[in-house]
Amino acid sequence: MLDDKKVTAIMEAVDEGFDEQMEFTAHLVRFPSVRGQEQTAQDFMAKEMTTRGLSVDRWKINVEDIKDLPGFSPVDISYENALNVVGTHRATRQKGHSLILNGHIDVVPTGPLDKWTTPPFEPRTENGLMYGRGAGDMKSGLVSCLFALDALKRIGYGPASDVYVQSVIEEEPTGNGTLACLQRGYRADAALIPEPMEGTLMRAEMGIMWFQVQVHGDPQHASGGQGSGVNAIEKAFYLVQALKDLERDWNGLKGEHPEYISHPYPVRFNLGRIKGGDWTSSVPAWCHFDMRVGFYPGWDLADVRAKIETCIQKAAHEDDFIKSNIPTIVYNGHQSEGFVLKNADEVEGVLGKSHKAVFGERLGEFSIPGATDGHFFSLYANTPALVYGPKCISSHGFDEAVDIESVRKTTQTIALFIAHWCGLETV
Amino acid sequence: MLDDKKVTAIMEAVDEGFDEQMEFTAHLVRFPSVRGQEQTAQDFMAKEMTTRGLSVDRWKINVEDIKDLPGFSPVDISYENALNVVGTHRATRQKGHSLILNGHIDVVPTGPLDKWTTPPFEPRTENGLMYGRGAGDMKSGLVSCLFALDALKRIGYGPASDVYVQSVIEEEPTGNGTLACLQRGYRADAALIPEPMEGTLMRAEMGIMWFQVQVHGDPQHASGGQGSGVNAIEKAFYLVQALKDLERDWNGLKGEHPEYISHPYPVRFNLGRIKGGDWTSSVPAWCHFDMRVGFYPGWDLADVRAKIETCIQKAAHEDDFIKSNIPTIVYNGHQSEGFVLKNADEVEGVLGKSHKAVFGERLGEFSIPGATDGHFFSLYANTPALVYGPKCISSHGFDEAVDIESVRKTTQTIALFIAHWCGLETV
Repeated sequence: MLDDKKVTAIMEAVDEGFDEQMEFTAHLVRFPSVRGQEQTAQDFMAKEMTTRGLSVDRWKINVEDIKDLPGFSPVDISYENALNVVGTHRATRQKGHSLILNGHIDVVPTGPLDKWTTPPFEPRTENGLMYGRGAGDMKSGLVSCLFALDALKRIGYGPASDVYVQSVIEEEPTGNGTLACLQRGYRADAALIPEPMEGTLMRAEMGIMWFQVQVHGDPQHASGGQGSGVNAIEKAFYLVQALKDLERDWNGLKGEHPEYISHPYPVRFNLGRIKGGDWTSSVPAWCHFDMRVGFYPGWDLADVRAKIETCIQKAAHEDDFIKSNIPTIVYNGHQSEGFVLKNADEVEGVLGKSHKAVFGERLGEFSIPGATDGHFFSLYANTPALVYGPKCISSHGFDEAVDIESVRKTTQTIALFIAHWCGLETV
Repeated sequence: MLDDKKVTAIMEAVDEGFDEQMEFTAHLVRFPSVRGQEQTAQDFMAKEMTTRGLSVDRWKINVEDIKDLPGFSPVDISYENALNVVGTHRATRQKGHSLILNGHIDVVPTGPLDKWTTPPFEPRTENGLMYGRGAGDMKSGLVSCLFALDALKRIGYGPASDVYVQSVIEEEPTGNGTLACLQRGYRADAALIPEPMEGTLMRAEMGIMWFQVQVHGDPQHASGGQGSGVNAIEKAFYLVQALKDLERDWNGLKGEHPEYISHPYPVRFNLGRIKGGDWTSSVPAWCHFDMRVGFYPGWDLADVRAKIETCIQKAAHEDDFIKSNIPTIVYNGHQSEGFVLKNADEVEGVLGKSHKAVFGERLGEFSIPGATDGHFFSLYANTPALVYGPKCISSHGFDEAVDIESVRKTTQTIALFIAHWCGLETV
């Protein structure tokens, strides 16, 4: 047990390193670690972990190694530069509980640059916010893991059990980065993922599925008049509408899922991308659209796919052209099951105690309509995953930012959590 | 005047060369002369014109030379390999009427290859049809110009006036190829364009305008729930609908345009291309769609743009987000006015006479809902342009084909037309 004096010392030690922590965060934000380009940020993380005395394992994810594991999501990109980095602190004697600290280094695309007040990969601090793509989701969280450990060391301690800091890729599109850590054998008594949860604990996350619908058309000269040719883009609009009806139906089922009963609209179908047609004066022969759907924890992936396909087939059969030109559905990216955090009273208690020491109030909880890598630990490794981190503004949006004070406080909480959960040994 | 014997001799001379003509056509179809890649087909045409004793002028189109001319359409591609080819027959003495024979070598994209029965650039002949991208639109027509001249030569004649065979590019996206011929000074007493008109004379063509609407969104995390973020793709759908309403309104005006009064639906707005979003789990920040609109002859380009912009602005102001995030409209590609063939009785009479000699019936006429390069000659060079050629199936579609018998007959008509219009001299 930590006495009050030690609690205060740990919190002050975080404060002491906090300017450096935010400089480090800004440095990390400068790496444009969008999908397929995470490697330079990962090289930097590996170097920083080495500097801190962690034993570094940096490896290229091999699809062959993970493709048959539950939780794998198919990909259509190269993993040529797909590096994971794990830095391990090995305790002298393994007295306390072991811990995985997991955060993702990949960020989503910026969208049009002219919509950003300042460039997304040139972090800017203003009015207590640090702006930049990935500042909130979730480089500040990932960095806070290293600096929580730094704070303990600053006052002469290290965790009294093994701690694995995992800087993973592929969280945004698949989760295959965290899956690859599991495949490599990394296990602990609990995992903490400092995703931007605004200082609350994630109670549940939705399942997420990505799929592409490839719609066919009948290309003819654009001047063919009504009835000549079939416009694949317009047929895509029609199918999107059918899927939007399914979204509404699924939201209607929230009463069956206690974690989501009070959420206004937990199921979100996002029409995220579209591309169709080759020539302005030809009736488009093809249109592909990409959709992200959310679904409730406990729903089976095969069932979800069946529901989506039934929806599309039903709409197809009400259209004379589509019914004889059935769209192709391709599943690439997230095939992620949801989960509810359960049977984790002990570790939740430790986080709650740590949070209360910092924030002065009880740890709240929230069930998110999105997803994190948390489900991998819970569903496939029987490991409680606590998702808890700072406050992010405009995640995935223009002018994404993290609230700096929330970073400071959640870093203090994480440092205390490590001290309580792992125990401390003198270094 | 040609006597019956000479008419018969010319028609037979076409027949004599017809196998070679179709082989030549197949060879030309093999060049994948989509936009930006016409140069190899043009090199071949230049060589073939030289072989035939025509004086060849092959030049790279320079946007600077034409950009201020009426009829110019802006482009956003490189003209690095944008070659026009004109082969000139200079008569010993200029006795008859001079003539431009104009055809385009550029073809539209194929669309998905798996929808073609056989590959689009490997021509195939079956049941009287030659299949291949460009077989109908309009390599067979372009080739028929050369073989009509060949036929005359075969029986010892050449045109008794100057004839310019123009193999142009950029007909499908802009018309800048034909415009560049005018800029270079090519003029004649009439022009004939063997576009696939199924053996009828084109009486009128519509104006064509291409534009792109760049729609903005507010990207947020896809899981943000209802009311979080604004989906640019869905906003594009909304604007497309507004434009479709304008299409309907414009069709309602056909009564004011005698050439189109009996056409079921002369104005066609084609949603030809769409692209939007960067990430399946982000609300799309942007969506661009390309539309081709048709409008009546006599309508002014500036007025058409004003009507389109008013339509989009009206829809924008009925939407809370779009009204403060007004889409950008970019005009690239066709900015082509329509025209009605008028005051061309003499040359029409010559074509009609030639057609009747071959087909045994009166030359019909048709006002097309599309466009050709004909308007350049009519509007900007005071030259009557006759658009008349073979029968094409599935223009711009899969399994495009030309009816071989229609090629034979329209080539005979063109040979007779040259003989009548230009007169003949012995070679």
